[in-house]
This record gives sequence, C-alpha cells and structure tokens, in this order.
Amino acid sequence: MDLVAREVVEANFSRQPAMALIGASLVVLDAGSVEVSFPFRADLTQQDGFIHAGIIATAADSACGYAALSSMPEGSDVLSVEFKLNLLRPAAGERFVARAQVLKPGKTLTAVRADVFALADGHERLVAAMQATMIRR
Amino acid sequence: MDLVAREVVEANFSRQPAMALIGASLVVLDAGSVEVSFPFRADLTQQDGFIHAGIIATAADSACGYAALSSMPEGSDVLSVEFKLNLLRPAAGERFVARAQVLKPGKTLTAVRADVFALADGHERLVAAMQATMIRR
Amino acid sequence: MDLVAREVVEANFSRQPAMALIGASLVVLDAGSVEVSFPFRADLTQQDGFIHAGIIATAADSACGYAALSSMPEGSDVLSVEFKLNLLRPAAGERFVARAQVLKPGKTLTAVRADVFALADGHERLVAAMQATMIRR
Amino acid sequence: MDLVAREVVEANFSRQPAMALIGASLVVLDAGSVEVSFPFRADLTQQDGFIHAGIIATAADSACGYAALSSMPEGSDVLSVEFKLNLLRPAAGERFVARAQVLKPGKTLTAVRADVFALADGHERLVAAMQATMIRR
Repeated sequence: MDLVAREVVEANFSRQPAMALIGASLVVLDAGSVEVSFPFRADLTQQDGFIHAGIIATAADSACGYAALSSMPEGSDVLSVEFKLNLLRPAAGERFVARAQVLKPGKTLTAVRADVFALADGHERLVAAMQATMIRR
Repeated sequence: MDLVAREVVEANFSRQPAMALIGASLVVLDAGSVEVSFPFRADLTQQDGFIHAGIIATAADSACGYAALSSMPEGSDVLSVEFKLNLLRPAAGERFVARAQVLKPGKTLTAVRADVFALADGHERLVAAMQATMIRR
Repeated sequence: MDLVAREVVEANFSRQPAMALIGASLVVLDAGSVEVSFPFRADLTQQDGFIHAGIIATAADSACGYAALSSMPEGSDVLSVEFKLNLLRPAAGERFVARAQVLKPGKTLTAVRADVFALADGHERLVAAMQATMIRR
Repeated sequence: MDLVAREVVEANFSRQPAMALIGASLVVLDAGSVEVSFPFRADLTQQDGFIHAGIIATAADSACGYAALSSMPEGSDVLSVEFKLNLLRPAAGERFVARAQVLKPGKTLTAVRADVFALADGHERLVAAMQATMIRR
C-alpha cells in the first residue's frame, strides 16, 4: 500500500489559509511524524503577551492532522474529530514548534499526540501537549 | 463578594490581540455566561474552506476563559489549564458563535463548557463542543 | 429508519459485566438520552472515601455509549472512541447518576455529553462532566 | 525538597479500595513514573468481552495520580482534575498495564500521560492513551 506522498501532504498544508494567517510552516519528518512551527508575533497573543492557547491549538491540530494524513493510504484526506490540549507553561518564546506523532493509525480513525515547544535563546521548553483523533475521508 | 465587573471582563478581552486577529467580539450575558463570535473569513479556513478547528478552538477557549473570569472575585485574572474540543459538523456559515457557560466555579479551578454554532440563512447549527478547565490567578 | 429498540439497548447493557461489578442500572429515557446509576459502595472508593474517578468514568462511559446506541439504526453496536471527564466535586453521596445526552448523532461517529450527579439527603449535586465520542459498528 | 517517599505512594495506593476491586497493583519506577497493572477478569468486561473502557480509565487514572504524587513534595496528597482517554484497540489480553509519566510537575497542577498496554503471549500492544491533570492537596 502506498501512503500519501510527502508532496501531497505539503500541498494540502499549503491549502490551509489558517496556516498562512499564523505564519506556520510544515516539515514532514516521516510517515506519521510531522512538525508545524511558527514565529512569535504580537497579534497571536492573549492578555498577558503569551501566545493564545487557541493559536497553539491551531498549530498542534494541523500537526496532528498532517501526521495522520502522512500515515494514510494514497488518495486520503483528513479531518479533525476532536482534540484535547493541556497548557503546561506560558507560551513565551521566539518560535513555537508542534511535533506530532501518530499513536495508532487506523482505516477510519487515527490517534495522534503532539508536543508543543517554545524556543528561546537556543533552548526549548514544553509548553503544551495535545491528544487528538483524526478521521480519514 | 463582588465578581469581576462586566467592563473589566470586556477590557481584558480587548487586550487579546488574537481576538482582533480573527475578528472576534465578546458579549457578557451574565456571571458565568458569555458569547464570543466572529464572521466567516477565507483566511481562517482549512483545506476544504471550512473554518479551521484551531480557530474554532481559539474563539471557544476565549469564551470559556471569559465565562470563567466573569464568575470570579474582583481582581482575578484567568488562564487556560486545558480544553477538549469535539468537531461535530463542518464549520461552514456566515458567522460563528461560541456560547460558554460555567459548569462549576471554584476558588482555584473553574470548569466550563462551550457550544459553537454556525449561523447561515437565519439558522444556527451546532458545529463544535468544548469542555475546559480554567485557573484563577 | 428504525432505531435500536429500547429492549435491545437494555439487553446490551445487561451483557456488560462491568456494570454488574459496580452495581449499575440503566434507564433509557428517550432516543439519545439515558441514565446509568449506582449506589455508593466502599469498595468503589479512592483514598479519601470518595467514589474513584475511574468508577465515575465507567458509569458515564456506559451512559454515553448507550445514549449513542439508542440513537443508532437497528442492528448497530457501539464502541467508545474516547472520552474526557472533568471531576468537579468530591463524589460523596448515597447514589450516583450519569445522565447522557447525544450532542450529534452520526452515521459513523456520535458525540455525547454526560453529567454525573451525586444524590444525598434528597438533593443532587453535579460531581463530574464527560464529553465523549462513540463509534457505530 | 524531599519528594513523597515511595512507601508513602504505595501506602496511599493500598488505601484505594477501587484498586483492590479490579485487582490492580502499583510499581513506582521513579519520581514521576509509575505502573499500575491488573489481570484480565471476565467481570471487568463490556458487551464484547473486552475490558470496559471505564476500567481501563480506572487503572490509568490511578497511574497518573500516583505518578503525579511521586513527583510532589513530602506531605502532599493528590486528586484528579480531569483526564482524557483514547481507546485505540480492543482491550483483549491476559494482563493490562498503565504506564504513567509526568509531563510537567507543578506547585498546584501536574500534567501526566499514561499509555495502557495489553499483554498476551509475551507481547504487548498499546490499547489506550490518557492525558490528565492532577491537583496537589
């Protein structure tokens, strides 16, 4: 069985205007494993100057979705069924990266986890953790 | 005990640049009950032209946060601990409204639910449901 | 389309040994709406004498599953995809009831919420809240 | 700062009657890392003979709670705030083990993940995944 090709995953990502809105880019690491990252911008923040939890969720949800898509058979598309996000530390930093890894691929449903890190001064800190369910279409 | 005043909740909301980014506005209905709504915009969508799940989460998270804040004692601020979002239908429509209601206020933690509706042609349809935990600061 | 009959839902419930283990019983209120309740028992508790969060989850998960099943076409069975449970107050009381209501029925996936109440001295208090996804088989 | 001692964690676990009910035992691997396991028993199952999702949740919740407790300062106790469980495969096997690992310890809140494996014929398979929030008391 051929999986969705890396170029097809990337092309799908580039058709998500919300990713352009937050300045996010995608790296497909392997089947079932992707990174979505975006730089700090003041217009993405909440009342304390940290990245808004929903913006963290936006990047992490896309990371989970594309991790899932990259583990699916050719011709698939993907939609989010649900996700849960724990906010672990204030999302302060220069850049944010959501690393998603498929937990369990499936014919219909795929479970994925993502860890979101803040990068600052050459170090990274875990700021959020997602556990999600994606559906193949 | 005096709760956080409506004007203080509104002022806090207006200090969230991410709400301006997505064009969202807040209505405080009552202590523990708020609505956050935003109009459809193409730059908020995913690959199929529906509002991105993360943008839905962004509005719903702020709705949950401000519902919680409006039920807290004067002088409080609020942060998201975690939320879970179920995507129930494609988020297509002219406008989207997240209605949040406190389930259980607390000295430290407040549990909140939000229902997100899509408005189109004078009708509204439930498109997503959130269950969240907020912490008082 | 005929839905799964009330008797079939009840018969399915009676084939869940875990429900007997915790002494739970089912009432189907309507299509998409059920109650699962069980009495306090010391062997269901955690270290403080409250009902263990996992036992609350056990009743609420079955309530969500049977609410979903009662909204599905004849011949269906149901499995849990995922659930999220918020523990709102210590689960102290004489009896506990999980009231589940389908949020969005679907051909494949059904989203359900359950509220869990503790009954004591003729009053009930909300002690937990679940949001779940069920799959039709 | 001294953490809660291993013996104190074990003693706390032994005061959870619900753990005896499902035949569970605890191994503290390290600060922030524990395993809770239990053997298959027919009375723990759902309608298809698999372990009930709520029983999986019961073991995983205790694993998350004791992982959190083992990372807290001496004199702490722990309560579950919320957890989310994804059911990934039918829980069939001879024995089940929930491995919990603290993601982010905190003064008030601690985030924890647990993976639940089914053991059969000398192999183990991931059957469920939890992401949880615990509170220190």
